[in-house]
Amino acid sequence: MNYINMTEQELKSELAKLTQQYNDLKAQNLSYDMTRGKPASAQLDLSNEMLSDKYLGNIKTSKNIDCRNYGILDGIPEAKELMASIIGVDPANVIVCGNSSLNIMYDTLMKFMLFGVSKSAKPWCKEEKIKFICPVPGYDRHFKITEQLGIEMINVDLNDDGPDMSKVKELVKDPAVKGMWAVPKYSNPTGTVYSDEVIKELASMECAADDFRIFWDDAYTVHYLYDAPAKQLNILKACCDAGNSDRAVIFTSTSKITFSGSGLSAVASSKDNIEYFLWHMNVQTIGHDKINQLRHVNFLKNYDGVIAHMKKHADIIRPKFEVVLNTLESELSGLGILTWSKPRGGYFISIDTLEGCADKVVAMAKDCGVVFTPAGATFPYGKDPKNKNIRIAPTLPVIEDLKEAIKMLCICVKICSINKILEER
Amino acid sequence: MNYINMTEQELKSELAKLTQQYNDLKAQNLSYDMTRGKPASAQLDLSNEMLSDKYLGNIKTSKNIDCRNYGILDGIPEAKELMASIIGVDPANVIVCGNSSLNIMYDTLMKFMLFGVSKSAKPWCKEEKIKFICPVPGYDRHFKITEQLGIEMINVDLNDDGPDMSKVKELVKDPAVKGMWAVPKYSNPTGTVYSDEVIKELASMECAADDFRIFWDDAYTVHYLYDAPAKQLNILKACCDAGNSDRAVIFTSTSKITFSGSGLSAVASSKDNIEYFLWHMNVQTIGHDKINQLRHVNFLKNYDGVIAHMKKHADIIRPKFEVVLNTLESELSGLGILTWSKPRGGYFISIDTLEGCADKVVAMAKDCGVVFTPAGATFPYGKDPKNKNIRIAPTLPVIEDLKEAIKMLCICVKICSINKILEER
Repeated sequence: MNYINMTEQELKSELAKLTQQYNDLKAQNLSYDMTRGKPASAQLDLSNEMLSDKYLGNIKTSKNIDCRNYGILDGIPEAKELMASIIGVDPANVIVCGNSSLNIMYDTLMKFMLFGVSKSAKPWCKEEKIKFICPVPGYDRHFKITEQLGIEMINVDLNDDGPDMSKVKELVKDPAVKGMWAVPKYSNPTGTVYSDEVIKELASMECAADDFRIFWDDAYTVHYLYDAPAKQLNILKACCDAGNSDRAVIFTSTSKITFSGSGLSAVASSKDNIEYFLWHMNVQTIGHDKINQLRHVNFLKNYDGVIAHMKKHADIIRPKFEVVLNTLESELSGLGILTWSKPRGGYFISIDTLEGCADKVVAMAKDCGVVFTPAGATFPYGKDPKNKNIRIAPTLPVIEDLKEAIKMLCICVKICSINKILEER
Repeated sequence: MNYINMTEQELKSELAKLTQQYNDLKAQNLSYDMTRGKPASAQLDLSNEMLSDKYLGNIKTSKNIDCRNYGILDGIPEAKELMASIIGVDPANVIVCGNSSLNIMYDTLMKFMLFGVSKSAKPWCKEEKIKFICPVPGYDRHFKITEQLGIEMINVDLNDDGPDMSKVKELVKDPAVKGMWAVPKYSNPTGTVYSDEVIKELASMECAADDFRIFWDDAYTVHYLYDAPAKQLNILKACCDAGNSDRAVIFTSTSKITFSGSGLSAVASSKDNIEYFLWHMNVQTIGHDKINQLRHVNFLKNYDGVIAHMKKHADIIRPKFEVVLNTLESELSGLGILTWSKPRGGYFISIDTLEGCADKVVAMAKDCGVVFTPAGATFPYGKDPKNKNIRIAPTLPVIEDLKEAIKMLCICVKICSINKILEER
């Protein structure tokens, strides 16, 4: 029965029962960490074999380049091909980098700040004010980068098909709006898959700033839970078709394919952008870790190899997602106090409490030994204006713990919701 | 006999003979690349064993942290200890990073430009003009970074004991002089070892800019050719003793210890600087490649392990250095037309022709199929004001090739020198 329709008496009786349950659980000294989107050990084990030197052969590329020595700025050709296949672009549009795509995003923004988006562009740090569009809820680490750089962030709601495009199109009329974050597939934390229609609009919309750039973090592009990765219009192609070929910069990595600390990252963009990035990168470094590139290529082989490997990941984490979703369903369905995303890929489930309850729910759970990502973390400046979003990261804990943790979460959600409803009566 | 003392007739006759030799060699279609300071395959082979998974054990640190997953921004404790031992500092003063120390130098400068040297400092990009002191000859890639950032570079001669300190101390009276490059041990390209006296002066000199920083690229700190690495006063200690504890930032890597493309890099500095770097790095990345850190630690073990490993490198490259030096000695000694460094470590030999001859020598050698680093590369903006310095990189070629290439070089030096002497008479 929907809590809203309950009488005060019914709510108070329910609250007493829940408080008893909460205290009973509290007495058990639980300790669950649900904070980070880290792969479980079993997932990492899937790639252990890659560490055998049999995957290195004579440590040379097919063109006989010694991967142990200096050189090759844009990645060995085999690795460019592999990463290009993952994000669906031509290898010529790809640079394979080190172990962190976050680091490339940061670097790219630093370069745009100090040098501008091209050799002839004005450095963003010379502008009086720079703004970025941030679809929310989103990825905290994106927001941290823009915050550190003093870029003003503007929230735009993430709908089921992507960011609210009427709002986005309005915002880009402001020449100070220079860019936008996007996690286009199995978005962090909602699991949203941007529709082709939204992608076309992002690619073609008129922007007052001619150096407007979309930071397209395709982190979860092959991270499917069911059947196969969602098909999606390629943003580079969409931008090219719309005559805005330099607008998007794609980032991706194998951090959640092979090893989270020791994967490959890659950046992809138009030919001109890639040339510009390499021009800078040529000053920045002599090259990235080619031995690790070779290891990845020989282990994952090609796109089909990646997809087969990701099925093994899905088989490990799908039951975890389902335990969360089933528990939410069985505990909270019909109560009218929580909505949740039902992702078909990615690493997170996003829940929305009644307004003003998220921080209280997280605090209550923490008091009981169950730690969730702090409320607000999914918003710029750590500030969720409606204080309702919480990110659940189901991959790391074992299923039994996850079930207990989510049950506890549901109790906290119920208690906080009843308190709120009662207060408002 | 010194060429200067020869009669015109003698010189012309010598020139005719040399030209004949040059043409004979040219007819042989030589092809030697002497441009880059790359390790030879035999050196890289010394670390091949490191790629075996036996050096990874259960892929956990001694504190049971899974190196395959996210986390640990400053490097696994074992790797911090190893890198700290190489540069002679406390592990608490070290951050272990990715595969490229050049990349950390670039990053550090980018951060100083955009954010300043500390949370309270003024960003360098907000200053009207920034200048850097560049000991010359020096490392081309350092100069490329400062050039790209629009920092004005000022040449200071590198003496036998380090940079000309009277010039340096004069320059730092200018508040626009914000920093200085330094390769303090077995300097690129001269092999110079800064004296403790010079280090003390650098640490204690009065600088008009209170955010003056020394970029201390300790790239060759254990790269000895004879006996043992040169002992040297530690710059962090010297700065601390002088009350300027934040002045120096040390960079190093294992690029020329293990693998040039897949080593570990590290940055070391005062506690405050390290804290500040980590504060930024925490926004930049989730962490560096810990598996590669573990691999290095288990393979190299500790400082003694590193020194024993470096002896194997020395045994491979010392004969190459000696072939170059012996050939220069036997071909050019007493002619008064060339001076050269006699390094006891590092990767290069530096030669100085008569003024105005370096580019001609390099061009002549290239015409004959022997490619040296372009003349001027060892100076800011690629411009050697006296046009006399050439960098020789002896490590990569095999000894026979090296001998031939240097013989050819000597012929070119003789020809260009005679031409110059004749012109000036």
